[in-house]
This record gives sequence, structure tokens and C-alpha cells, in this order.
Amino acid sequence: MYKLTKHAKLSGLAFALSVLTLSAAHAQTAIPAIRPVALDQKALTSPLVLEKQGSFFIGGRDIQSDTLSTLPAYAPSGTITVDQMYTHFQIPPSSKDIALVLIHGCCLTGKTWETTPDGRMGWDEYFVRRGYPTFVIDQSGRGRSAVNATAMNAAKMGKEPVDKLPVVFAASHESAWTIFRFGPEFPKTYDGMQFPLAAQNGLWQQMVPDWLNAMPNPNPTIPALSELSKKLKKTVLMSHSQSGIYPFQTAALSTEGIAALVSIEPGACPAADGDLTPYTKMPIMVLFGDYVELSPRWAPRLKACKEFVQKTNAAGGHAELLLLPEVGIKGNSHMLMQDINSIQIADLMGSWMEQRLGLTQ
Amino acid sequence: MYKLTKHAKLSGLAFALSVLTLSAAHAQTAIPAIRPVALDQKALTSPLVLEKQGSFFIGGRDIQSDTLSTLPAYAPSGTITVDQMYTHFQIPPSSKDIALVLIHGCCLTGKTWETTPDGRMGWDEYFVRRGYPTFVIDQSGRGRSAVNATAMNAAKMGKEPVDKLPVVFAASHESAWTIFRFGPEFPKTYDGMQFPLAAQNGLWQQMVPDWLNAMPNPNPTIPALSELSKKLKKTVLMSHSQSGIYPFQTAALSTEGIAALVSIEPGACPAADGDLTPYTKMPIMVLFGDYVELSPRWAPRLKACKEFVQKTNAAGGHAELLLLPEVGIKGNSHMLMQDINSIQIADLMGSWMEQRLGLTQ
Repeated sequence: MYKLTKHAKLSGLAFALSVLTLSAAHAQTAIPAIRPVALDQKALTSPLVLEKQGSFFIGGRDIQSDTLSTLPAYAPSGTITVDQMYTHFQIPPSSKDIALVLIHGCCLTGKTWETTPDGRMGWDEYFVRRGYPTFVIDQSGRGRSAVNATAMNAAKMGKEPVDKLPVVFAASHESAWTIFRFGPEFPKTYDGMQFPLAAQNGLWQQMVPDWLNAMPNPNPTIPALSELSKKLKKTVLMSHSQSGIYPFQTAALSTEGIAALVSIEPGACPAADGDLTPYTKMPIMVLFGDYVELSPRWAPRLKACKEFVQKTNAAGGHAELLLLPEVGIKGNSHMLMQDINSIQIADLMGSWMEQRLGLTQ
Repeated sequence: MYKLTKHAKLSGLAFALSVLTLSAAHAQTAIPAIRPVALDQKALTSPLVLEKQGSFFIGGRDIQSDTLSTLPAYAPSGTITVDQMYTHFQIPPSSKDIALVLIHGCCLTGKTWETTPDGRMGWDEYFVRRGYPTFVIDQSGRGRSAVNATAMNAAKMGKEPVDKLPVVFAASHESAWTIFRFGPEFPKTYDGMQFPLAAQNGLWQQMVPDWLNAMPNPNPTIPALSELSKKLKKTVLMSHSQSGIYPFQTAALSTEGIAALVSIEPGACPAADGDLTPYTKMPIMVLFGDYVELSPRWAPRLKACKEFVQKTNAAGGHAELLLLPEVGIKGNSHMLMQDINSIQIADLMGSWMEQRLGLTQ
């Protein structure tokens, strides 16, 4: 795929430059090499200046329910709003004219992108420092985006049978250990694995029950992302894991406002034999970390994504699949935005966006 | 109580100064008047500079469960972390040496303090601009702080009876309308009421189901606030509504690290006939908006808080109760941090903290 031939880190205001050279896989689409341009220490550590910050919700619908409460202090009947998507944003001065939306994965919230478990800067702030208006969402039904708890109360009140209780799951530390590829099974680790395990409690604290299977279909996060993209006019949708497919599903609804897609370790790519037309309209990056071939869960997903990328390019698209070890970046877990080398990968993704979209650096 | 005698707004870098003169209620404790000092337009609108920002969790405990999941993709048995408290912070350069913790109320999350429903600056940013290291939490079991969903799955799996389902309630728009004192009943409004009702959808989108009654007792938010206070060394705990009592309960655990308490429209004050010793150790402000006497829910709470303040002062404390209409600030709802005059009230609370704690302005 790519080959990392140089990665020099310079101090002061200078940039660390690396050169990725293109090898066989993309020859048919002639996608040029990425030159990784790192943020220097000053850009990473000086006081952060924001032109504006804030938060809002997108979407949501009002529903009537008679099972809102079993407590006398709160009426059981009335109107509530569900399915909305919380969005927090920060915009630096003289920002780039393309925004970035960060979309978390399973059993997590927007916290994924904030301060890492071991206390380092998250990608939310990194990309603001790099000049992007940056939007961090909580998926509908997760975090600050309300779940719809009426079905639970309906069962409690005897109005619905127990088997109508919503399907909600919590990923255990032990399950997450394997899914996040810290090692083959809890508590074993892969050699050289870069997740900061000494601070693992900071990851376990981030995890929340996942109501995904209790949500309407399609997940309301997808139309909300579409509405957000239209509002932003030009944005990159960057997703992770469970939400890896969401930017693709958003583009299938409408490509309006979507400048590019970055899907990090997606749980699924679009079917390679489906209609690939929407995905030929914008640069696409699918990113995977290390140890993928060792994981029965992830290896087939990587394979399917490779096929999707190939077919999308055959249909005239500009899709890329980057497997980090193939460019010499080793040891990354599934939670690569929190791994010890998270900033190195952010540098790479920032450079990809800038070079594919013709943005200033 | 207080009487607002002057409120002059000046442009440019100058400050708007107001003078509150003290009348009878506090004569026994001789608490001096507050001079409200407003942030000027430049301080409110220039780019925001942050020395540091980030997020972390406090507290939480690991539990073993066999009812984590009913899905084949996620194991039913394993360890999860529950009861932790999400905390987001922003610290301005040359910050004051006393921090501020903002604690939301019922059926809401830390979003309460962010951008108002009609798109104006929230108190989270206001107090950063005023120089406070500002910490916004999501109560344990709310927002980005995970709920414990194992009891729901235990019922779904037939391992526990339905009546063991957690007590979770959602406040309807109609209930909230009255509780938040937009008017006597939905959809009537009080004359001159200052909540931005044209943007009410932005409030309904903020509301989330409340697991308070399914939480351990005491609510884990309270020891987490205690741990946060100790970590911050000197902080003001500012709470609202359901959480109005939490700063008091935190101080009863330990006064370490707590510089002052601000309780906004508390659902309850500590019992006036209880041990008031912890509350004599620090300045206390209990703040109420307008229309309180018209509300069967709020009028008794105001009365009980007045009695608490009186007894605390009789025991040697420095507690104050400020009813906004008594200082000429009229029309405030229960959601006064989102009301149209929210910044005027923030000015007042900032001035109170600075003058009671001897901070620079």
C-alpha cells in the first residue's frame, strides 16, 4: 500500500516531514503519496485560542407516552423528545474552510476523542490546533443524547411483556480487551501494543451501555450527520468502529456537504457488490491499526473493506485503505486515537485531509 | 434581603458596576453588600484563550455481572465500571486560584451550562472568561457517566422479577414546563418570564431519563464531588435544582477543598434542625428566581431554605439567600442559567464569589 520512507521530527516552528511512497495497491487510481506534516511542539502546547465554541442538538422527534414515570413526582403521560444528536464544537481563528466531525464507536461517547486515559491531548483538541472547525458528537441514544426509556417503564408497569424490554448491552472489560485488540484474550497483550494499559481504568470509565439495537432503523445518528453535513457545507466525517459505516450511510442518503470520509477500523464497510456511486464522489480513507490478521473479529472486516476500496476505485472513486504496519507504524490497537502514538496518527490523518482536499497546512 | 440600587453598563474595557445594599435579613451576620461587576463586551466576545482543557472521570467501581448482554456478539458475564463521574474542564491563562464546579440538575446533563437553547454563551464559558478554572460534570448515571444497565438485562433474561427493574423516569415537556416555572401550567406563561421559549425545542433536546432512584445511596456523585474538591484544593461547588443539595452533602462528608457553595434553586436545603456545623465553614449562596411563591412545588422549598440560612447564620455561618426579584431582577424561571438575562445573573454570582472569597476581579 504505502511505504513510509522518512519521518524526521524537527523542533521549534519547523515541521516534521515524512514521505509516504505509493506502491502497487493503488496504481490503478494513481493516488499520490501522503507527506505527513506534524504539528510542532509549540503548536501542540501553546495556549489554545478559540474563535468560538459551543454545543447544540440536531434532530430528534417528539413522542407521546404513558410510561414516562412510575414516580408520583413525575407524570406518567406526556411528550418527550428522543433520537436527537448532541454536538459540541470548537472553531479556531483563521480556520480551514472544511470542518471535521468526530464520531465515536460502540459502548462509548464523544469522550473517545477527548483527553486520553493517560492524560494526553485528545484528537478533539489536536484538530482544532491544526486549524479545523471540529465537531464531536454523542450518537443518538448515547451520552448526552437521550435514550428512549419508555419501553423499560412499560414493562415495569406491566403494560408490555418482559421480552419487549429494549436490547441493551454493556461490553465487559474482558470482551473489550479482545475487541480493542490489546491482546488475543484478557489479560494477555500483543508484543509492542501501544495502548496505555497502565491507565486502562480511564478507558473502562468511558464505557457506557449501548442502546444501538433498541434504536430506530436507520439509526437516527445517520440523518443527523446528514443534516450536520449540510449545515457545515464542507466537512470530513471521521468515524470509528461501530460508527465506521455511518459516514458511508450518510453519503448514501446525500453527498451534500460531505468533503471526504475517514473511517477508522470500521465494523463494516459498504458491500463491495452494492451501489458504490455515492462513494466515488469524495476522497475516502479507511484506516486500520496492527494485529488485525490475528483477530478473528477484525481480519474478515479488513478483507471486506479492501474489497470495497478496490471496487470503489474500479468504479471511478478515490478510496484508500491504510494499514498502519505497512507504513512502519506498529503496535496500534483498535483505540488508536488513545494509543501512545496517537498524535503521530493524527498528524497522518490531518496531512491526508489537507493533501487530498487541497487545504493549506 | 438585597436591594439593587444601581446597575450601569459601560462600553469598552470598563466594567458595569452595580451596588447592592444590604437590608434587614442579614443584619445579624453583617454580611456586606455585593457590588455586581459585569464582564464587558470585549471580555465576552474576543477569542477565548485557554491555558488547558480536557476531561477525566472521578470515582467508579468495578462490578461483576452475568447480565451484561443478551446478544451473541457480547459476553453476558464480565466486569464493568459503574458510578464514575465525567468531568470536563477549561482553564484560562492567569486564572484565579479558586476553581468552579458546575453541577446540573434533574433530567439533564452538563449541557445545562453550555450554549443556551437560543444560541447564547453558556455559563461554562462565561466563568472561564471571568478567570475561573471551570469544571462541568455529568452526574454519575447520567450523560457521559455510565448507567448500570445490568438490572434491566436481569429482568429481560428472566433472572429477576419485573418489579426489580430500575426506577427511571423521564420528565415530559408538560411536567417540566411547570417545574421549571415557565408558567402555572403548560402552555401558559407567567408575565415577563425570561426563558427563551421560542427556542424551547433546544431545552427538550437536552433532557434525558433520570436514573437517580436506581443509584446507590448516597448518590456516587457526592463522594466524587468530594474527591474532585480535594484534588482542586480550593473550589466553589455550584449546583442546580435536584443537585442543589449535593454541595451541602459533599461538605458534610468533608469540607476539604471547598471554598464556597452556590446552590441555585435547590430541590432541598439541609434540614434547619440538623447539624449545621459543616455549613458554617464557608460562604454559602442560595439563589432563587421569580414566581416562586406562585409554585406549590417551589414555595415550600424556598421557605425551608430561608430557615436553613437563618439557622446556619445563628450557628456562626455566612449563608445568604438571594431572591432575584428582591434585587429588581425579574422574570427568571428555574432554568435561570438559560434565561434571556443569564449573563446578568452570572455577573452577580461571579461578583459574589470574588467579594466573599477576596478574589481579584
